[in-house]
Amino acid sequence: VSDSLELSEYTGFFHQLADQAGEIGRHYFRTGVAVEQKADHSPVTRADREIEAALHAAIRAAYPDHGILGEEQEAHRPDAEWLWVIDPIDGTRAFIAGQATFVTLIALCHRGEPVMGIIDQPVVRERWLGGTGQPTLFNGKPVQAVPCKDIKNARIATTSLPYFDDHERAVYDQLAAQCAEIAPGQDGYSYGLLARGELDIVVDASMKPYDYLALAPVVIGAGGIISDWQGKSLNIHSAGDVVATGSTILYSSVINALSYSLPATP
Amino acid sequence: VSDSLELSEYTGFFHQLADQAGEIGRHYFRTGVAVEQKADHSPVTRADREIEAALHAAIRAAYPDHGILGEEQEAHRPDAEWLWVIDPIDGTRAFIAGQATFVTLIALCHRGEPVMGIIDQPVVRERWLGGTGQPTLFNGKPVQAVPCKDIKNARIATTSLPYFDDHERAVYDQLAAQCAEIAPGQDGYSYGLLARGELDIVVDASMKPYDYLALAPVVIGAGGIISDWQGKSLNIHSAGDVVATGSTILYSSVINALSYSLPATP
Repeated sequence: VSDSLELSEYTGFFHQLADQAGEIGRHYFRTGVAVEQKADHSPVTRADREIEAALHAAIRAAYPDHGILGEEQEAHRPDAEWLWVIDPIDGTRAFIAGQATFVTLIALCHRGEPVMGIIDQPVVRERWLGGTGQPTLFNGKPVQAVPCKDIKNARIATTSLPYFDDHERAVYDQLAAQCAEIAPGQDGYSYGLLARGELDIVVDASMKPYDYLALAPVVIGAGGIISDWQGKSLNIHSAGDVVATGSTILYSSVINALSYSLPATP
Repeated sequence: VSDSLELSEYTGFFHQLADQAGEIGRHYFRTGVAVEQKADHSPVTRADREIEAALHAAIRAAYPDHGILGEEQEAHRPDAEWLWVIDPIDGTRAFIAGQATFVTLIALCHRGEPVMGIIDQPVVRERWLGGTGQPTLFNGKPVQAVPCKDIKNARIATTSLPYFDDHERAVYDQLAAQCAEIAPGQDGYSYGLLARGELDIVVDASMKPYDYLALAPVVIGAGGIISDWQGKSLNIHSAGDVVATGSTILYSSVINALSYSLPATP
């Protein structure tokens, strides 16, 4: 499965979904849309809900046998062989504050593994599309992460400072202190920036499948690496700690750094 | 001094300066431009230096008697009656990471008080121009902060988390915990967002004159308030702690909150 011939059938549909999402996102951006708090105290707006509903409807119409897992709605056939995983607005806090760094994330998983993903910023119109065995496209053109080799020359970002536990925070701080630059974290958008060479390391924790699954094909198709902090590939069951780098050499050092002070497994 | 008739002579020149800066910023954006560390460990690039040099040259040619104070170059006639204060790239960390949230800040001060200021984001082409006695213009059209009245309904942002001392951090955390939303901080860009109603409170510390002077006319001309944490108007000699709100009622509560746990002055 998941060779590029099979996936190419989904390319047009991915663009169609992102176009639909973008239209709604632009419609509500900077309009003072009301914000509600969810049970976990994260914010949600009408824009998040409308985008997810639109994508659900489009996917169910086009692929009735596929499953759908999104941030806001109840899952549909979550055990299906093909599963669409949606974050209608990743970076809702940025969206609410009028910052065009929020993104829509859409992943297609086959038996739980992400095989295709899109990161779309609809206001400044930046779109990354990645799929297994294909070069990642940024606004239609292939892009590459940069092969930075050393932590000391790397630019790092995280959006998880408020979510790290003490241990994660200590490990992250230790890693970041060795880097050349600490860049502002921008949720999923950071992984797109890494995939076009603007960042070298992105580290996060407490991510949900809809936060990380779309990122994997984008990063991998740009020559980067993405996994959990222990080095395991991301899938629908991953714990939510995520690290991406632009090169394999850098990746080894970063994984070492992240596991450095981990307590021994009992 | 500083009535709108006198200031109107500078309007065209402000746009000209921002246009020049923007051309250089766009030229180097996302090109992997080399980053150097300054003595204070903050990053600087060729883009920062070229923009400041270009603005210095333009100002000296147009107003040879005026002074110029910038982030990167030595000051020119810093005691002049009219002083231009420049941050060529505010948010260099965002610039380096390919995020179009950096801004060029230019202020004109008369006897140390900011009377006109511009906040310019050249990639997505967003420009705020404010001057004493004039409505703030966003891309040529008047904009207004929103009159949020209560801290509990407010959206707050800071970019100073890494710079706050323990006391400032405690005071900020206490304030932010009462707000409806904590938005990502985006340096000077946040104050532009407040001036068009996307944020209600922005709090920072350890700012330099070139970081805060341009912000004041923009915020004030949009109906907002900006001062130091004690409520004093910003001028060239301010200490660098800055708070802005979109309404006067909110401002009083925020100033109270910021001074709440201040130790008594001896």
